[in-house]
Amino acid sequence: MGDAVATKKTIGRVHVRRQPSRGHYDRDSIYEVLDEGLVAHVAFMEAGQPFCIPMLQARIGDAVYLHGSTASRTMRILGGGAPACVTVTLLDGLVLARSAFEHSANYRSAVLLGIFGRVADPDERIAALAAFTNKLVPGRWEEVRKPSRQELKATVILSMPIGEASAKCRFGPPTDDGSVDAGLDIWAGVVRMRTAFDNVEPSPGLRPGIPVPASAGRLLERKG
Amino acid sequence: MGDAVATKKTIGRVHVRRQPSRGHYDRDSIYEVLDEGLVAHVAFMEAGQPFCIPMLQARIGDAVYLHGSTASRTMRILGGGAPACVTVTLLDGLVLARSAFEHSANYRSAVLLGIFGRVADPDERIAALAAFTNKLVPGRWEEVRKPSRQELKATVILSMPIGEASAKCRFGPPTDDGSVDAGLDIWAGVVRMRTAFDNVEPSPGLRPGIPVPASAGRLLERKG
Repeated sequence: MGDAVATKKTIGRVHVRRQPSRGHYDRDSIYEVLDEGLVAHVAFMEAGQPFCIPMLQARIGDAVYLHGSTASRTMRILGGGAPACVTVTLLDGLVLARSAFEHSANYRSAVLLGIFGRVADPDERIAALAAFTNKLVPGRWEEVRKPSRQELKATVILSMPIGEASAKCRFGPPTDDGSVDAGLDIWAGVVRMRTAFDNVEPSPGLRPGIPVPASAGRLLERKG
Repeated sequence: MGDAVATKKTIGRVHVRRQPSRGHYDRDSIYEVLDEGLVAHVAFMEAGQPFCIPMLQARIGDAVYLHGSTASRTMRILGGGAPACVTVTLLDGLVLARSAFEHSANYRSAVLLGIFGRVADPDERIAALAAFTNKLVPGRWEEVRKPSRQELKATVILSMPIGEASAKCRFGPPTDDGSVDAGLDIWAGVVRMRTAFDNVEPSPGLRPGIPVPASAGRLLERKG
């Protein structure tokens, strides 16, 4: 589609075959998607059936981290060395063409293949928990009660090195500007999409006089 | 967590084991998530490796539909009868607790297991294409040029009956209102999230004098 510049640093099973100009293999493109997206969809196999589960993800350096309960089946399977696929997708816009056929979406996605391992090092575990909390709400880790020994014991943290990975994105207008369809009396263009943080709802049990914290305030300011 | 009422109509491999009160198995809960979410993450296996690919999905009745190019590897594998998992996730809010440990997200997700088949019936294929276009932008199908014979020939449409499926959701405030943490001088509550459609960008090649169509206008009004 000519709407992306491909740089190829990693190929193989994650090589973008359909519309290859949308493929990116440099770390910056992949990290941008991981860092902007909260949720990863993590795929793995169990008893011949693929499963795809949404999970909060955070990147630290060249690794992606997940966390969950020690009682979680997904964490047990992933931590047990099952081949995994981690996909993060950001929707940026709806692409309206003159024809139904050329309708599309502007998006950025990253697909990572690999195997997770359990994180045992106490400092790395704390760093990962800080990353999850600050991923959810930047700066929140500094405002809250830190994990107790019991809470740490109940938490599995997994990491996967970012190796075999690609990013794919589409941006720009519909592709029928140069076609015969451009002569039709039909509107074409992009409707932009973004995540809005509209308002805060204090917890019913919140003690009176505790103001909205700086971390949440910054999210609300993004509204504009 | 007591934040959801479970009704159990389908069990088995999709039964929600972690935090079972978050599980829903009735069709209304599952359809709500499918109908509100644009993108499905579709997992399948190829050569021992799970893949997870974001795709536009649409529901018609008791089936979920995907479409893609006849040249697509994903469509070839899924259309060839590979076991699949279709997951749709909606993020509704960030849940800020007093402790890092109790931070969470309010979300609704649906997980469907099954096998896709190729849709051959011409009327069903057109109905699916209308559903995709109107899923992207409600009412858009009625405004645009319909698919040509050549475009139809280049498009694979797959459907999967909605059988083994579950929805999982979390809603409401953080769960530490009733804990000793509620005495801490730390704010707790929910930051609401939604998808905003902020503005339209007419295509550079748009003929002068064509106004923003009713379909896109309704998306912008959602801005609220």
